[in-house]
Amino acid sequence: MIAAMRITVLAGGVGAARFLDGLIRVTDPAEVTVICNVSDDFAWHGLFVCPDIDTVVYTLAGLEGDQGWGVRGDTRAALDELTALGEDPWFLIGDRDLATHVWRTERLRTGHPLSEVTRDLAAARGLACSLLPVTDDPHPTVVLTEDGPLGFQDYFVRRRASDAVRGFRFPGAHAAQPAPGVLDALTTADVVVFAPSNPFVSIAPILEVPGVREALAATAARRIAVTPIVGGAAIKGPAASMLASLGHAVSALAVARLYSRLVDTFVLDAVDAAEAPAIEALGLRVCVTDTMMTSGERRDALARAVLDAAAS
Amino acid sequence: MIAAMRITVLAGGVGAARFLDGLIRVTDPAEVTVICNVSDDFAWHGLFVCPDIDTVVYTLAGLEGDQGWGVRGDTRAALDELTALGEDPWFLIGDRDLATHVWRTERLRTGHPLSEVTRDLAAARGLACSLLPVTDDPHPTVVLTEDGPLGFQDYFVRRRASDAVRGFRFPGAHAAQPAPGVLDALTTADVVVFAPSNPFVSIAPILEVPGVREALAATAARRIAVTPIVGGAAIKGPAASMLASLGHAVSALAVARLYSRLVDTFVLDAVDAAEAPAIEALGLRVCVTDTMMTSGERRDALARAVLDAAAS
Repeated sequence: MIAAMRITVLAGGVGAARFLDGLIRVTDPAEVTVICNVSDDFAWHGLFVCPDIDTVVYTLAGLEGDQGWGVRGDTRAALDELTALGEDPWFLIGDRDLATHVWRTERLRTGHPLSEVTRDLAAARGLACSLLPVTDDPHPTVVLTEDGPLGFQDYFVRRRASDAVRGFRFPGAHAAQPAPGVLDALTTADVVVFAPSNPFVSIAPILEVPGVREALAATAARRIAVTPIVGGAAIKGPAASMLASLGHAVSALAVARLYSRLVDTFVLDAVDAAEAPAIEALGLRVCVTDTMMTSGERRDALARAVLDAAAS
Repeated sequence: MIAAMRITVLAGGVGAARFLDGLIRVTDPAEVTVICNVSDDFAWHGLFVCPDIDTVVYTLAGLEGDQGWGVRGDTRAALDELTALGEDPWFLIGDRDLATHVWRTERLRTGHPLSEVTRDLAAARGLACSLLPVTDDPHPTVVLTEDGPLGFQDYFVRRRASDAVRGFRFPGAHAAQPAPGVLDALTTADVVVFAPSNPFVSIAPILEVPGVREALAATAARRIAVTPIVGGAAIKGPAASMLASLGHAVSALAVARLYSRLVDTFVLDAVDAAEAPAIEALGLRVCVTDTMMTSGERRDALARAVLDAAAS
């Protein structure tokens, strides 16, 4: 156990959940606050689904699905039945997972804000860290493609991230308020970590919420980004193809450039060690380590490396 | 196959579904219209559940659950997960069944009336008969007990029908409109059948919808009630205890008295043949037959007996 630091993690997607899984094992989970992306949230048959929140919850609750999302070993009786009723089963929701969405939707419908519902969900699943949606307000990602604007899940799941991406819009951003606790978690942290998440559709929408960039600029915390790109590829998801279609190199360096005014330290995979000088030239400290979280031990080791970098 | 008559059935509960299962095998289903009770409908975690409609749909689709309701062999992963989230699983919803409620709730939420949603549900399940909710409007049954008024499912499922019943209220009845097709189905039928259903909480709420009693009085159809009481007991459900606690005898004769101004023929079980003279003394024709639908053949035989009575 490393001496307790207050750690706030910006999180979205499977990489973030796996990083957090290690983090809460190697430090005191009570000192960890997760600020979670909500811009991929969407309505599924009228139920409110929060993929990034749920991936964190299931992973930290030990229920992590085989692909990183959903509940391990979940069944799909309800989904098959919706298909029998004529619905297109383009988005996979398992039966156990479905309970979460039914439960959350009813809580939201009866007037509870998402932050409160998420806190209760995390408590019901036994999470010892704090889990905050970045905002309680609608704040969707719109993906701009050659076929026009697409909702994030339309782009990502229904169309299998096959469209060339021209950009993003966050039409709810300017009216979104940070959820209670979000800005405090940034300003009072000892360390802020950008999890190994997609910079465009996980981290950027968090930064778009008014007050978040300002809090990041004002905090005395060490600010550390963990690369989501290893050896020129995304560990998971469309980050690599987004970098390419937006005219960036597909490299850790390209991500470091995107983050260079927001963080002071960049965690780079050992296979990309040759990029370290260029990243240092951006004014960032570089920590080179193994970032592939292919086992629980490797998750723990990455978390320890990040904490060591923060403490050094 | 008996020569086609236009048959309209007032239905609620498992007995009605089993009767209909036989009826659509022994006559042309296209000539059968089911007017279904909706007064036991309720919100389950924000989802709109229609137990009587669903019992008819599942039974006629060949999915009849072992207890008569729900989907045969259904799993309960979602329900167990809701329990893990701290909810009381007092009402059993299986995973396949849950899909129906998700699907219906979303349809209703986006502005489709229950009658249209029910028609589409029946079509998706391959039903060849017409299935109508008696009304598209909210029309709940309130059960008056010594502990005060209870919602129907609170009384029936949560409290296991253990309260002595003092009466019923239908607070939505006067404002409810019959769903499209309901009054026509009564006035244009050759036969109207009161299914073997609970007189108080299945048939009465149908009759309470404005226009239904008038249409029954005006129709030229043969009007036939099938007893839900056999040998002094209800085949299923709380009809017997309701009769008793409301001061009636628990007998087919008592049900015949309740229906005596609404129907012209009463179908009595052979074990209760001794009650036939008293029922005839109410001005009703009596058909004595085996009403216990303990097999598919017996369901068919009861349907045939009812049609024979109608044709005679």
